[in-house]
Amino acid sequence: MSSEKTPKLTLVGAGPGDPDLISVKGIKALRTADVILYDALIDPALLEYAGPDTEKIFVGKRADRHAFPQQEINRMIVACAFNYGHVVRLKGGDPFVFGRGQEEKEYAEIFNIPVDVVPGISSVTGIPANLGIPLTMRGWNESFWVMTATGSNGELTNDLRNAVHSDATVVILMGIGKLGQIAALFQEAGKGNLPVAVVQNGTTHTERYAIGTMNDIVEHVRDKGIGTPGIIIAGQVVSTHRELESVLVNVNRLNNGSQE
Amino acid sequence: MSSEKTPKLTLVGAGPGDPDLISVKGIKALRTADVILYDALIDPALLEYAGPDTEKIFVGKRADRHAFPQQEINRMIVACAFNYGHVVRLKGGDPFVFGRGQEEKEYAEIFNIPVDVVPGISSVTGIPANLGIPLTMRGWNESFWVMTATGSNGELTNDLRNAVHSDATVVILMGIGKLGQIAALFQEAGKGNLPVAVVQNGTTHTERYAIGTMNDIVEHVRDKGIGTPGIIIAGQVVSTHRELESVLVNVNRLNNGSQE
Repeated sequence: MSSEKTPKLTLVGAGPGDPDLISVKGIKALRTADVILYDALIDPALLEYAGPDTEKIFVGKRADRHAFPQQEINRMIVACAFNYGHVVRLKGGDPFVFGRGQEEKEYAEIFNIPVDVVPGISSVTGIPANLGIPLTMRGWNESFWVMTATGSNGELTNDLRNAVHSDATVVILMGIGKLGQIAALFQEAGKGNLPVAVVQNGTTHTERYAIGTMNDIVEHVRDKGIGTPGIIIAGQVVSTHRELESVLVNVNRLNNGSQE
Repeated sequence: MSSEKTPKLTLVGAGPGDPDLISVKGIKALRTADVILYDALIDPALLEYAGPDTEKIFVGKRADRHAFPQQEINRMIVACAFNYGHVVRLKGGDPFVFGRGQEEKEYAEIFNIPVDVVPGISSVTGIPANLGIPLTMRGWNESFWVMTATGSNGELTNDLRNAVHSDATVVILMGIGKLGQIAALFQEAGKGNLPVAVVQNGTTHTERYAIGTMNDIVEHVRDKGIGTPGIIIAGQVVSTHRELESVLVNVNRLNNGSQE
C-alpha cells in the first residue's frame, strides 16, 4: 500500500533526556508516524507513543563513532518518506540547536517532501534549569553564549576564545573531552575562580554532575568519573547552585550589590 | 483544611506560545496544582489541565506595565503555598531564561518551601526552530549569543555592543522597541546586509514576522505593524528562511563553500 502514502517529514525535538520533557506536539507527531528514525540518546519510552505498526529505526551516532554518516541519514529519511509516508525524525534536545535538523530539512525539500519542525527543550536551557541554575541573573550578567567546543577542524573555536573574555554565561556542548583546554583558556584570562558546572546525562535518572571553579573542575570531573555526553556551564550564575552557594553567593552578592 | 496542606512550589516553563509546546512533565505539575499563578502570555488552554477546584490567579505583567512587581509575586507564591499547598508558577518560555524564576525560587526557599523546576522550551530556541531557522549552521557559524536589548539602566547592554562584532547568531529578547538602535549598531559595524528576523507572538496562531537585513528591517517591521512581545534573530542563518533563500542562500553557499 506504499503507493498510497503521502511523504512527509516531521523533525521532532525530544528534549534534553527525561522522556517527560517532550512536548505534547511532539507526542502528537509520534502518534501519527509511519516510521520513526531515532538517535542514540532517545529514551525508549518515547517510542511507545507510536503504534505497534510504526517502524522504529535506530540511526544513532555519538561524537566518537560515526555509525551513520549524515548523508546516509538524509537518504534514509527520503527513502522512508516515499516508502512509509510520515517520517518522524526524533532528535535529542532541539533539532535546530546544533542538531543538523536544517540539513535534513533541506535534503527532504529537494524531493518536495513537506517538512514540519516541532521544537524541543534544548539541553542548553533545560539541563541548567533542571539543576536550578539560571543562565542569567539580574545584577550579575546580561547574556549567555552557546557553542560547541571545537569547530570542524577539531580545534577550540574562535568564538570560545572570545567568549572567555565576555561577561556572558558560556554554555559549551560536546566539550567534556576538551575540558582541560577549556579550563586553561579561562585561567589564562584571569578567570580561574569562575564557577563552572559539568553535567552528564542531564535531566535523566543517570544524571551526574560536578561543580567547582576553572581551577579545580578537571579534578572534580575526574574524581566523579564524569564522561560524555554532557554540557559545561561557565559563569557566576553557577554559584547559585546549592553545592556552591554557601561558599560563594554571599561574597558575590556583596560584590555585586551596587548593580542590583 | 489548609492546615493539612504541605507547601510546595513548582516553577513550570509553558514554552514559547503554542499551548501544545508545554512538556508532559509540565502538564503533570498542573494536574496536581492547588493553585496556579500565571503570566500574561500564558494560553488559557493550559489552565484547563488543572482541576476545577484549582485556584487560578493572574499575576501578569508586560514590559511596559508593572501591574505586579516581582516582590509582590514572590510574596503571593509564599502565601499561596502556605494557604493552598502546591503552587504551580506557570511562566512563558523557560523559567530560568530571563524569567526571574531564580528570584522566586530563592524567596520561597527562605521559607523552607521545597522548589522544583520544570524546564520549558525557551522562545530563544523554539521560535526560530518553528520558523525553520537554525541558530547555527555548519560552515557558516559556530555559536549563538542570547541577551535582552537593554540592561537595568534602560540602555543597550555592553554584551549587545560586543555581540555585534562577533560571528555568533545574536538572539535578542525584549528588543523590538529598540530595533532602530540595534540595527544602527550592526550598520556601524559594517553589517548592514546581515539578515535579521523579527517575530511577534512566535509559535502561536497570531504569529507575525518580518525578515530583511539590518538596512531595511525597521521599514519591514513598520510596514507589517509588528509589535511586542517578540524576538530578534540576527545572523547569516536567517537567510535559510524561505522568504530570503532565493535571494541570499546561493550567494552565501558559494562564499562559504570552502569552509564546509
